[in-house]
Amino acid sequence: MSLIIIGSLAFDTIETPLDRRERIVGGSGTYCALAASFFTQPGIVGVVGEDFPEETVDFLKERKIDIQGLEIQPGKTFHWEARYGDDPNQRTTVKTELNVFQDFKPQLPPSYRKSRIVFLANIDPDQQDEILSQVHKPGLIAMDTINLWINQKRDSLLKVLEKVDLYFANDEEIRLLTGEKNLIKAGKKVLERGPSLVAVKKGEHGALVMGKDLVFGVLAHPCEEVVDPTGAGDSFAGGFLGYLDNIKDLSNKKEIRRAAVFGSVLASFVIEDFGINRFKTLSLKEIKDRFDEFRKLVSF
Amino acid sequence: MSLIIIGSLAFDTIETPLDRRERIVGGSGTYCALAASFFTQPGIVGVVGEDFPEETVDFLKERKIDIQGLEIQPGKTFHWEARYGDDPNQRTTVKTELNVFQDFKPQLPPSYRKSRIVFLANIDPDQQDEILSQVHKPGLIAMDTINLWINQKRDSLLKVLEKVDLYFANDEEIRLLTGEKNLIKAGKKVLERGPSLVAVKKGEHGALVMGKDLVFGVLAHPCEEVVDPTGAGDSFAGGFLGYLDNIKDLSNKKEIRRAAVFGSVLASFVIEDFGINRFKTLSLKEIKDRFDEFRKLVSF
Repeated sequence: MSLIIIGSLAFDTIETPLDRRERIVGGSGTYCALAASFFTQPGIVGVVGEDFPEETVDFLKERKIDIQGLEIQPGKTFHWEARYGDDPNQRTTVKTELNVFQDFKPQLPPSYRKSRIVFLANIDPDQQDEILSQVHKPGLIAMDTINLWINQKRDSLLKVLEKVDLYFANDEEIRLLTGEKNLIKAGKKVLERGPSLVAVKKGEHGALVMGKDLVFGVLAHPCEEVVDPTGAGDSFAGGFLGYLDNIKDLSNKKEIRRAAVFGSVLASFVIEDFGINRFKTLSLKEIKDRFDEFRKLVSF
Repeated sequence: MSLIIIGSLAFDTIETPLDRRERIVGGSGTYCALAASFFTQPGIVGVVGEDFPEETVDFLKERKIDIQGLEIQPGKTFHWEARYGDDPNQRTTVKTELNVFQDFKPQLPPSYRKSRIVFLANIDPDQQDEILSQVHKPGLIAMDTINLWINQKRDSLLKVLEKVDLYFANDEEIRLLTGEKNLIKAGKKVLERGPSLVAVKKGEHGALVMGKDLVFGVLAHPCEEVVDPTGAGDSFAGGFLGYLDNIKDLSNKKEIRRAAVFGSVLASFVIEDFGINRFKTLSLKEIKDRFDEFRKLVSF
């Protein structure tokens, strides 16, 4: 195993303009690991309560996700409630109940410590830093975060940022972090702080990947009906890093571009249904077909 | 000559977060014709007052733009004042003084009536319709409009829309026109109303071109400093239609894609300086080089 993902497993209550779902399975780690599982066999690190459905754990195992790093603790699973506006990019967090996640002290199983790719999905930056002290020279460290930590734990976050190679952010987050409206400038500012790569997720407008001598734009799949935007960003990172886990040279620009397209492809699938449902029927063939569609979409 | 452009020639007063320019030359027709002039010799139809600078008219002629359709009338040139926010897509119109444009009755010179491509840039839809009654079977009719007309002259506008082949809009306009938030759905709704092609301009996020069996996404050039966003949309249309004017088969999808990229290239240049300044030094070589950069930007 060479990709590990540290993130949340959660119950999400989701309201869109058209529909509502109560306490369906979600979480940054869940989405990311499932997306990555189409390319590699990722390990997941996180915590759930005793109420977390066994069938979801079975589904993770079925998708060959390594769950040695998944702790089950007495108590309730993290619960998050959000509402989306007509524009799927507009999201309001209604409620956050951390529950067992509150005092989670991530401990990597020994077999995870020599992982090649480490992804710090959105969790408290102090927890992210703690994880980094437990890994042994990974080939690539990636991170994600949210506005909450940028606002509340800026110093901790900047400390982690210095140590990572790849920073995933959405446009709003990178603007908040850098104080730059212009995304190219914002990306460059992040590159000055440590990472050699930045991937800016822009929802329906796709994503922008920046690095030394690299600016790459990937579109979002033209989608007429976003059923549930939750997990799109995590699935983007999962597709990106899962694909990259098969590549020998992690600095190969051509492969980084392809990784970003696979990220966008996975994100485009997950939003077609609520929660992780779409991953239950998704096939590698569908993923590859859509990858080819992405090529047609931009070729001239 | 086979492309004619009916639009405004104006004085613009522009305020950006960093700078301000009083009464510099602008106008949808001016921007569009100049952008198109790198590919073809467009004709322009519009009206200016006696205060319009002779040197601008000389510059249009120098760029081989046919000005037979340009009327000079007693009175003042159309004056528009706008302010941009930190986000170049946020624009507030401060003042609109129509002046000689108020009662402009566009009359096409006889030599313009058999034009192959007719572009109705943003003017009153009744004036657009009047133009269409004066042309003889053009190969392609394109139009642009703004929220003002969508709100105030919806019926007139829909009547024109039925008669055109290509509708240029920005994301805000097409959403207002169709009542659809999702741009793919909005595009399809427009395609049901007459046009066989829709080009949705999305500012820093590029553009989307939709037609029968065609969805094409073009990025915006990654630009760190937007000096003045004015005229980007008009230059997009000018580059698009100017390029297309050299193409025999106006329904060739490959060429439509390339036309959209050239549109995006021209738009990316014009915003590098205030008003039409950038066009004064721009060369076809720079345009072709940036076209190649666009290819690198999306290739994977």
